Amino acid sequence: MAASAPVPKRIYTGAFVHSTSLTELEICEKGAIGVDSNGVIQFVERDISGIDDVRSKYEWKDAEVITVKGNGFFFPGFIDTHTHAPQHPNTGLFGKTTLLDWLQTYTFPMESSMSALPRARQVYTSFVSRTLSHGTTTCAYYATIHVPATNLLADICLAKGQRALVGRVCMNSDLSPDYYRDASVEDAIRDSKASLEYIRSIDPAGKIVNPIITPRFAPSCTSDCLAELGKFAKETQAHIQTHISENKGEIELVAEMFPESKSYADVYDRAGLLTEKMILAHAVHLTDEERKLIKERGAKISHCPASNTAITSGCAPIREMLMEGQTIGLGTDVSGGFSPSILENCRQAIWVSRHRAMEKGDDVKLSTSEALYLATRGGAKVVGMEDKVGGFEVGKEWDAQMIEMESVQENEEGEVDGPVDFFGWESWEERIEKWVYGGDDRNTVAVWVRGRLVHSTGRYKS
Amino acid sequence: MAASAPVPKRIYTGAFVHSTSLTELEICEKGAIGVDSNGVIQFVERDISGIDDVRSKYEWKDAEVITVKGNGFFFPGFIDTHTHAPQHPNTGLFGKTTLLDWLQTYTFPMESSMSALPRARQVYTSFVSRTLSHGTTTCAYYATIHVPATNLLADICLAKGQRALVGRVCMNSDLSPDYYRDASVEDAIRDSKASLEYIRSIDPAGKIVNPIITPRFAPSCTSDCLAELGKFAKETQAHIQTHISENKGEIELVAEMFPESKSYADVYDRAGLLTEKMILAHAVHLTDEERKLIKERGAKISHCPASNTAITSGCAPIREMLMEGQTIGLGTDVSGGFSPSILENCRQAIWVSRHRAMEKGDDVKLSTSEALYLATRGGAKVVGMEDKVGGFEVGKEWDAQMIEMESVQENEEGEVDGPVDFFGWESWEERIEKWVYGGDDRNTVAVWVRGRLVHSTGRYKS
Repeated sequence: MAASAPVPKRIYTGAFVHSTSLTELEICEKGAIGVDSNGVIQFVERDISGIDDVRSKYEWKDAEVITVKGNGFFFPGFIDTHTHAPQHPNTGLFGKTTLLDWLQTYTFPMESSMSALPRARQVYTSFVSRTLSHGTTTCAYYATIHVPATNLLADICLAKGQRALVGRVCMNSDLSPDYYRDASVEDAIRDSKASLEYIRSIDPAGKIVNPIITPRFAPSCTSDCLAELGKFAKETQAHIQTHISENKGEIELVAEMFPESKSYADVYDRAGLLTEKMILAHAVHLTDEERKLIKERGAKISHCPASNTAITSGCAPIREMLMEGQTIGLGTDVSGGFSPSILENCRQAIWVSRHRAMEKGDDVKLSTSEALYLATRGGAKVVGMEDKVGGFEVGKEWDAQMIEMESVQENEEGEVDGPVDFFGWESWEERIEKWVYGGDDRNTVAVWVRGRLVHSTGRYKS
Repeated sequence: MAASAPVPKRIYTGAFVHSTSLTELEICEKGAIGVDSNGVIQFVERDISGIDDVRSKYEWKDAEVITVKGNGFFFPGFIDTHTHAPQHPNTGLFGKTTLLDWLQTYTFPMESSMSALPRARQVYTSFVSRTLSHGTTTCAYYATIHVPATNLLADICLAKGQRALVGRVCMNSDLSPDYYRDASVEDAIRDSKASLEYIRSIDPAGKIVNPIITPRFAPSCTSDCLAELGKFAKETQAHIQTHISENKGEIELVAEMFPESKSYADVYDRAGLLTEKMILAHAVHLTDEERKLIKERGAKISHCPASNTAITSGCAPIREMLMEGQTIGLGTDVSGGFSPSILENCRQAIWVSRHRAMEKGDDVKLSTSEALYLATRGGAKVVGMEDKVGGFEVGKEWDAQMIEMESVQENEEGEVDGPVDFFGWESWEERIEKWVYGGDDRNTVAVWVRGRLVHSTGRYKS
């Protein structure tokens, strides 16, 4: 399989940057990271005098060397903990809707059209390319209810080499329209099983793609469906993803539909779904009791700030949830979210924290470092891959992006080939800030997953 | 002068889009706009059958024809009603600061360094190129206190052909550090006069560049300085720009420093500065009384949403101010704002309105069309150029951008050379939404001011 085939032994030299804790970024200017033919980091050198010394020290004389240029640095690949591949063509289309009317107006019609495989192929090929181009090396995808299209998404991720959790969506309640829902609990389970088995068959060791059990969200499933999915999750030990407490109307609807449950979180808990394998997207309006329950169960939270702002869902209390020890990553939530970029969602997480700070004071602000932590280490924990990805340590796999920024000195007319203007006097901390607040996919000139080059731009090739 | 030299007579054909009112966009699929050698629109055709018919009808047989491709359209150039050219190198650098500490930490040190002309030349050349590349055809610039550097900024705008208001900053109070302020009221007025006269000398008819009187903001000026600037504005009939009511700490400071004034707006009014020539940046926390006064005086408002979010200033009540008849445009406010793009500020204006809607309900939301109106027609009114720019009508000047978007069909791998994925089934309204929510400078493939091509990308040249 191409995505897990051996890669050339390589040494990546130059600056690298990664989070070492929620608040701290390590910036290493003269680094050298050795990655073996399995894509695993074998050494991390922090102050090299020259590449020959490194080659000798590790007896890696035949390794290829990849060097990042002047203003650039290696950064861990981003982890998108929540997005919807079939909604990609709707990116930017939401008008003034909020969740429940947005679903009916934009989302269900588009998702149902993925029953046609040629359309699904075009949309998924485009979306996986797009997320890779933004440096997303791991992505938790919602697909649709359609087994063939869901399996195709897994095939595409595997072929392109993007680490992915791919979920066939379960939705059997009559919130969903007749033309787009599971006909019965049995159908929902049978199809989820078929997709799970297929995905496990194409990547038996789960090195690149893995299935994820995906009840859309409580209102689109009946209690018995959720309970069956809970059993299925236990049997298969698969990951699980859903939405929670995104929008106030949705929360009222859940209270009406599940009168026996104490809370929205309790709906999932009763079904046996609220486990450490669960990724809960949004978590905007949770009660203290729900947060306590989520933490006890070890479930994870995907913060989707662009989406929460665009469709006016609310501002998730990320600072407070971090302080109480919740595990949190970022999600683009396309197409509630208007951007497939985790870098954009770092900014959006910071803006949401600023809007909260206008009311609650400076303590709730997120720093640049904290947003980058959520985008990498935090996301790795959310998808249960913190031992493999999210930072640069021996034993981890080389999921990385090469960031480059041109300097204005290169052109007298003041025009540079990228979104950020560098003047050359910036400190390393300032370079990173400029990338986070002004950068985009043009700065992500190359992307690797498990040591395999999965995306590059003309600038990298040159 | 190159910027006002005759241009070839041209017919721009294909789709064009512009605002016809706050809420309405006109989308014309088969347009043809004739622009004469002075850059003035001579005809606007809305449903052409072929270019030859247009040539014949207007006897424009020798005109060049410029055609926008498939998914693309012509759009009016953006108008940036408030930004700071010398702060460009600080774009993205603000940390967790708010206005008053941000000024001392980041802004004053950077601005003071523009005393060195080589540095100013590099920064201003880069920034004018940058704003042009984002489709900004008119820009109201703050420079610094330095006359030579301010004049250089005007020279650069004129040479590059960007319509600009260029302001030498006045700041004589001890809020500003010793190393960067006017030594006296006399110095402030003398230097402002010198710069105003220079700018009027290089473009006597004011076709491209015009001076703008620029008291930084009330706290950095003494009352007598403001009063002298008021007289100077009356004598010269020049535009005026300043900041108002951006941050709560700033408002308290104004109340302390100007105890004789009834309000922040009244400080400017007493000085004779609150006129229809005045551009007031921010206007986040104005009282009802201040808004009434501003409206009575006919002063204009520059909404700077990216800045107001980034440095946690607050959310300006744009819906309410529009409803009461205020004149409002958008400002990037670099580097309080983290982006030189008015398109990004359209999005940010929409996000700010969404955050307000979370508390106040859906009525305060801005639509895509409304944001685009603020970016063009609204901005034109703010800078007093509504008869010249902001839309496509006979008699207006051709300040326009060509927007293009590649289709995913063009590449089987799903990779497109731009930020937006088009599938070909989108309606015209959806194309525009996709551009607004996902587009960037890559989609702005060519930019004209008064009919002169002032920016283009490789895609346009190809």
